[in-house]
Amino acid sequence: MLAELERQLTKEVKPDDVPHLSELASATSIPDLISVVEHVPSDRGAVVFRLLSKDRALEVFEALDAGHQADLLDALRDDDVAILFTDLDPDDRAALLDEVPATIADKLLRGLPRHERDMTATLLGYPRGAIGRRMSPEVVPIRQHRTAGYAVELLRVREAEYETLYMVPVMDDTRRLVGVVSLRDLLTADPHTILTEIMSPPISVVATDDEEEAARQLLAVKRIAMPVVDAEQRIVGVLTVDDALEVVEAADTEDAARHGGHEPLRRPYLSTPVLKVVKARIVWLLVLAVSAVLTVQVLEVFEATLDQVVVLALFIPLLTGTGGNTGNQAATTVTRALALGDVWSRDVFAVLWREARVGFTLGAVLGAIGFVAASLVYGYDIGIVIALTLVSVCTMAASIGGVMPIIAKAVGADPAVFSNPFISTFCDATGLIMYFMIAKSVLGI
Amino acid sequence: MLAELERQLTKEVKPDDVPHLSELASATSIPDLISVVEHVPSDRGAVVFRLLSKDRALEVFEALDAGHQADLLDALRDDDVAILFTDLDPDDRAALLDEVPATIADKLLRGLPRHERDMTATLLGYPRGAIGRRMSPEVVPIRQHRTAGYAVELLRVREAEYETLYMVPVMDDTRRLVGVVSLRDLLTADPHTILTEIMSPPISVVATDDEEEAARQLLAVKRIAMPVVDAEQRIVGVLTVDDALEVVEAADTEDAARHGGHEPLRRPYLSTPVLKVVKARIVWLLVLAVSAVLTVQVLEVFEATLDQVVVLALFIPLLTGTGGNTGNQAATTVTRALALGDVWSRDVFAVLWREARVGFTLGAVLGAIGFVAASLVYGYDIGIVIALTLVSVCTMAASIGGVMPIIAKAVGADPAVFSNPFISTFCDATGLIMYFMIAKSVLGI
Repeated sequence: MLAELERQLTKEVKPDDVPHLSELASATSIPDLISVVEHVPSDRGAVVFRLLSKDRALEVFEALDAGHQADLLDALRDDDVAILFTDLDPDDRAALLDEVPATIADKLLRGLPRHERDMTATLLGYPRGAIGRRMSPEVVPIRQHRTAGYAVELLRVREAEYETLYMVPVMDDTRRLVGVVSLRDLLTADPHTILTEIMSPPISVVATDDEEEAARQLLAVKRIAMPVVDAEQRIVGVLTVDDALEVVEAADTEDAARHGGHEPLRRPYLSTPVLKVVKARIVWLLVLAVSAVLTVQVLEVFEATLDQVVVLALFIPLLTGTGGNTGNQAATTVTRALALGDVWSRDVFAVLWREARVGFTLGAVLGAIGFVAASLVYGYDIGIVIALTLVSVCTMAASIGGVMPIIAKAVGADPAVFSNPFISTFCDATGLIMYFMIAKSVLGI
Repeated sequence: MLAELERQLTKEVKPDDVPHLSELASATSIPDLISVVEHVPSDRGAVVFRLLSKDRALEVFEALDAGHQADLLDALRDDDVAILFTDLDPDDRAALLDEVPATIADKLLRGLPRHERDMTATLLGYPRGAIGRRMSPEVVPIRQHRTAGYAVELLRVREAEYETLYMVPVMDDTRRLVGVVSLRDLLTADPHTILTEIMSPPISVVATDDEEEAARQLLAVKRIAMPVVDAEQRIVGVLTVDDALEVVEAADTEDAARHGGHEPLRRPYLSTPVLKVVKARIVWLLVLAVSAVLTVQVLEVFEATLDQVVVLALFIPLLTGTGGNTGNQAATTVTRALALGDVWSRDVFAVLWREARVGFTLGAVLGAIGFVAASLVYGYDIGIVIALTLVSVCTMAASIGGVMPIIAKAVGADPAVFSNPFISTFCDATGLIMYFMIAKSVLGI
């Protein structure tokens, strides 16, 4: 079904094809539909979309990220858009509004019923990047002196006002969060039990907290949802695991991009214009190339040495490459350990000491092999230069690669910004200096 | 509380400290306890652990990954271990058993009550890496002709036999999966409604499916859980979002490691011995260094040219570095797009064509700047060589970086294995050949 649906969508869609397409679309499962809509150009996605029942269309739409959603809205007819937008949850709506141009955002908001518009506006009142924008305001906290039976009945009757029924915040008389109860506990407890007896201590985030941190916190404790509170601990919303996943996925895409030395694309790769891709990459590439001019200058200083012993030039890419790889290995390990909470900022000296030893050992192994190989081909002297350089470069590169992410985090920068390419460039220049210093003293030039 | 608790744990714990520590531990929140236990050496973690109430201890333990769990079990007294192990869910137990030595695994299994042991053994019957090992067998499907009221009552009474109450599989008379109902729908429906009327079509995975793929599928559809079936569509278990998160986190850590050119560490960074870290890195570093010998050979071929115009050596790191960075940018984008389903294997030519254009444009911009800068310092001829090389190298590097992940995936390899360092090394050698060919023809040597 999937392959056939895709094949149909690669050619132009004629009115005659609609019945067949419609049949294919209804026989395709939701996960397959999601991947089709993400993959084909958005005008074709819109065709599939109109063929789905309202419920299925909404389920597919909600699973798309905000970038894909905005593209699709663009391609849909106005009345389709209005219906879809009204049926979205307020938090998904806020995320989507960040993606569309301001004029369209206004139009979309004006089409909403009063109550829905108010809820969306509340979310938009939090700063960009705050979890307040991604939470759902749809939650009715229950007072702590109520019984489990009352709570179940309330959930049943006011179900439409809840984003999730499975984690319900419990409040005191001033709407301050005092605990949470799961629907599971409510259902299995004796109906006369007072909530204070079955609630668990709340794990909550503040609405102005950074969205990525808050989302990771929810995923770390492996709960389905957690309450969001204001500065006075009053309940203002709920963060569910599906929204947390979306936030983390977007953040990971950004991190991966920075790690590869470019700005993240806001749209799916294949539908981003070539010039936008160039724009996302050129600045970093320029910065890196300009820093690499440092290596030209280092080499210029040693040009006389190079001229005397031109064989030294042969090893330049090997040595800088090995330094860069060693530095990247260390940086990747430490960045990941920071993200998982295995390493903290104040461990900087422990990390430095570990990486220096690791780098030295790696350098010693590579140096021994390099010594034998280079001695055989280029003579004993060159062998010694290569070996000593590998030991020094690996020790230096591992140490720098290891502490860079920690320093980045300490000064409040994203560790991914001090990304692998930067570490490579830095190690290149430092490694070349070491190389020629060692060569000059060993070869006596 | 957190800082004080950590400070106390860095020094030796004396019997007199226990009351104070105990007070600190009970005042610390679950997320903070998790990060403390993940961060301190496991013998100290075990101290904190014994001070917690059984429920809090279990909640912390369940949030740790299997590596941390195995370390902690090692450090705990035998009776603590037996209690913890028995209280774990069968799926978490199966994951943990993969981490501890076989003799300990046997001992742990023998301590389990019969019924629990059977459930764990069922999971261990699936091959390593299959989702059957990570699912929970604790689910009682409900027959499709039952009513919503009956279902709610069944969930209430047999609650202990369910991993989750929030998504319940619905079966026909042969235990085949026909749909799922959410507890939310059960609770809000009229109690006399037949399940077939309110159930939704199931999204399920097969128990022998790859764990990472299955977990990502659940996270992609943003549901709380999904049924796991056997080859005949019979319900054998349930995969919950928290277990899916654990699988994906472990897979991401592995990918990040491969991307940085080393094997993943199985233990937290700071508690892994230095020699194990060296072992995880040395093989890849050696392979990369040996491939970099290619660059030495390429340069050897052009040694005469280098000897004539030694200034050409100055630009080697700049040119290879820029090529590597361009290739990595493309590889990172395409790897991520593959993971998100934005790009599929059969898009290889579309990607190649895009990246060739992107690379050419990037090379043209850098080449123009490089021409001006190099001409001013080293003369017009060198300027032309640098400009032409940048254009060719960037076009080649972006094309290779873009298609490498797709080729890796097509031949069944992990795209992260054809990692950035490999692309850099490959681009280095190819770029050097281009550089010297261009230099020879422009400079007429």
